[in-house]
Amino acid sequence: MQNLNKETVYSLVQVKGTWKRKAGHNVKQDTKGRVSAAKIYESSSSNGTTWTVVSPITFTYTVTQTKNLLDPSNDTLLLGHIRDAQQLESIRSSTKPMKRFIVMDEVVYNLYGSQVTDYLEARNVVYKILPLPTTEENKCMEMVLKILEELHRFGVDRRTEPIIAIGGGVCLDTVGLAASLYRRRTPYIRVPTTLLSYIDASVGAKTGVNFANCKNKLGTYVAPVAAFLDRSFIQTIPRRHISNGLAEMLKMALMKHRGLFELLETQGEFLLNSKFQSALVLEEDLIDPASLSTRIAIETMLEELAPNLWEDDLDRLVDFGHLISPELEMEVLPALLHGEAVNIDMAYMVYVACEMGLIKESEKFRIICCMLGLELPVWHQDCTFALVQKSLCCRLQHSGGLVRMPLPTGLGKAEIFNDINEETLFRAYEKWCKELNSGSPQ
Amino acid sequence: MQNLNKETVYSLVQVKGTWKRKAGHNVKQDTKGRVSAAKIYESSSSNGTTWTVVSPITFTYTVTQTKNLLDPSNDTLLLGHIRDAQQLESIRSSTKPMKRFIVMDEVVYNLYGSQVTDYLEARNVVYKILPLPTTEENKCMEMVLKILEELHRFGVDRRTEPIIAIGGGVCLDTVGLAASLYRRRTPYIRVPTTLLSYIDASVGAKTGVNFANCKNKLGTYVAPVAAFLDRSFIQTIPRRHISNGLAEMLKMALMKHRGLFELLETQGEFLLNSKFQSALVLEEDLIDPASLSTRIAIETMLEELAPNLWEDDLDRLVDFGHLISPELEMEVLPALLHGEAVNIDMAYMVYVACEMGLIKESEKFRIICCMLGLELPVWHQDCTFALVQKSLCCRLQHSGGLVRMPLPTGLGKAEIFNDINEETLFRAYEKWCKELNSGSPQ
Repeated sequence: MQNLNKETVYSLVQVKGTWKRKAGHNVKQDTKGRVSAAKIYESSSSNGTTWTVVSPITFTYTVTQTKNLLDPSNDTLLLGHIRDAQQLESIRSSTKPMKRFIVMDEVVYNLYGSQVTDYLEARNVVYKILPLPTTEENKCMEMVLKILEELHRFGVDRRTEPIIAIGGGVCLDTVGLAASLYRRRTPYIRVPTTLLSYIDASVGAKTGVNFANCKNKLGTYVAPVAAFLDRSFIQTIPRRHISNGLAEMLKMALMKHRGLFELLETQGEFLLNSKFQSALVLEEDLIDPASLSTRIAIETMLEELAPNLWEDDLDRLVDFGHLISPELEMEVLPALLHGEAVNIDMAYMVYVACEMGLIKESEKFRIICCMLGLELPVWHQDCTFALVQKSLCCRLQHSGGLVRMPLPTGLGKAEIFNDINEETLFRAYEKWCKELNSGSPQ
Repeated sequence: MQNLNKETVYSLVQVKGTWKRKAGHNVKQDTKGRVSAAKIYESSSSNGTTWTVVSPITFTYTVTQTKNLLDPSNDTLLLGHIRDAQQLESIRSSTKPMKRFIVMDEVVYNLYGSQVTDYLEARNVVYKILPLPTTEENKCMEMVLKILEELHRFGVDRRTEPIIAIGGGVCLDTVGLAASLYRRRTPYIRVPTTLLSYIDASVGAKTGVNFANCKNKLGTYVAPVAAFLDRSFIQTIPRRHISNGLAEMLKMALMKHRGLFELLETQGEFLLNSKFQSALVLEEDLIDPASLSTRIAIETMLEELAPNLWEDDLDRLVDFGHLISPELEMEVLPALLHGEAVNIDMAYMVYVACEMGLIKESEKFRIICCMLGLELPVWHQDCTFALVQKSLCCRLQHSGGLVRMPLPTGLGKAEIFNDINEETLFRAYEKWCKELNSGSPQ
């Protein structure tokens, strides 16, 4: 926009249902009209007019921990997304049955399908449950279209009948994309059933599917109206999938929270064994590492996501472990789970940080030991230096020409780095291979 | 969200690249940290914690009128979307060739393809032009995926190399959807080549495709970075398509602008004959109805769209003509163009408004005469009363239980109505059929 000529700013005032422009930046709200936060800037040249629209949209969503989500006496699943007390009251007192479209991962359906059905029957809900094989290999546009067809056939009110997704990250991401496309945005609810999705996919606004063998290449930034977190689901997931989730938790610990790191260091094995279901008594104190660690993971994640919901800021600490892992994960699919690929990426980056003098050798050792304690892979033969180079090159291209590499600068703190020379990367790579290709630090 | 317990509000402050929560609503910006507009509300119950994220995202886009868009000396097509003067300067002085992916409607490609190619060659751009048959019948997800495959193969920088769409509304909507999905949002530019898309699709944020025989059932609200409007494209479109665009212009006139209505009443035929290419001398004054009418149409449209970019407000004057027409258009596809279906809807609604005493018989007559002068259909045999009922019933369902019917309350003003009884609708329908099924008011 070349403002050769004067630019005029207009505010927008609504009078009797009609919006009118009114010159000026600060037009006062009066009894007659409501003033929008949007503005229109206008300038003219010999070619005509240029209008610039500046329109702020506020996104609101809740993340709610609950217990016994599938107990019919708990109405969170059906009403927990409603923030307006009056609306809630009117729905509670209505006799009209509610209608819900529910997508479940098929493994989750086998475990919890009858409980979900019983819940919906008990609450007199008109429903359709669609079980789907939501594996990483099936995370694609065809599955989104399949959901949309069934959703359209069933029919929901685009304002008041949110779609419910129950499953792991793939299920939540895929349903989220379908919902964000249907009628340009239909509300949806995320119910994570894995540790990974509990602390990761449920907390943010991203939806997506893989495309052309690239991870999450298609998607939107449309947050669910609500995420309902019930930790009891985690008891039915395999041990390897608990480790998988612990990797994303460790990410937040390394980037932002030394206390969480130390908790994972000391209580990692307990968390794996107890599957986040129980507390323990330690030196006469009752401590609950499951509750504490999930809470810190979610809070640190929300801190980083809330100010950058549409990822306009490219400098993101939450990208730690996500620079090389997308390529690696897709390359070896289905050999590595998402968190496992992330952990391999993080392990290498810890070597880079150490090579750069950002962390001490002893800190590097503690981090790698913690990873091994969480039963996570710290090295992978397919993570070649060529793949590292390719991934970072790709990152450069899509991050405005800077590599924006989050690296730990101690335990629980980090910064974004851009000037890292190839030689440092290679030396770190060699050390990483030498020390870890047997699977344990030497 | 049941706030049984105290709610705490947190602001977010960024210190050295890390976001930290800080209790309180108004945390001051200081030299150390930058404060986000986002907030996190936290409350606890015996079940756990509820976090509510409130995150405002500002959308900015420009609509720019230009002349000679395809003249190599005009750099609007390549650089007109850049608002930052410094960034513009650095690109202008760079020797690195620019890269652009361009989707054109295939009819437009036949007419302007060589001009576009010459332009890109002259400016040393690395490019790929994808011509597609962007008809209403082809407006579907398969076309979006086709665009995405070609885009992915070609490769663009998701920040600095906007996708360019050149064509009518279907082309702009489809490319817009593809762009908004690719890497969760890749910038795109709209270049409308029809009158309808010049004043309608180019001005707003909506993207979309048809699905399950329903119009624009899938889509997003992601505005282009810029729309470049060059009226000269309109000279190559058939007369019927000029009328098609005039229907949406008449919509804005009827809802918001008496002056525009009178201009269409008196200069409609001239606009049709001159295809928006020339001015005329009237009583010794040079008047330019093409320039004037498009300008008012865009300004009135922006007034209504800017404060409601994501359509959170369901009361929308711009929905006039769009309550029954989507059903009608899809039902008779490809018999009616979009604007023709809209006009038939508007003609019937004018009868409803008259039946309700909102406008006078003489005003109704003027409006219908104006429509006929614009060579638009005012009645259609497939627009049965059953279809009217079905459409309004569907509207009720998807507009929070209210019909929210915009109706003229005079020439150039309107309001939203909810309490319209079936009998009034039917009486209006009977009169509409009786008076107009021959194609002219009696």
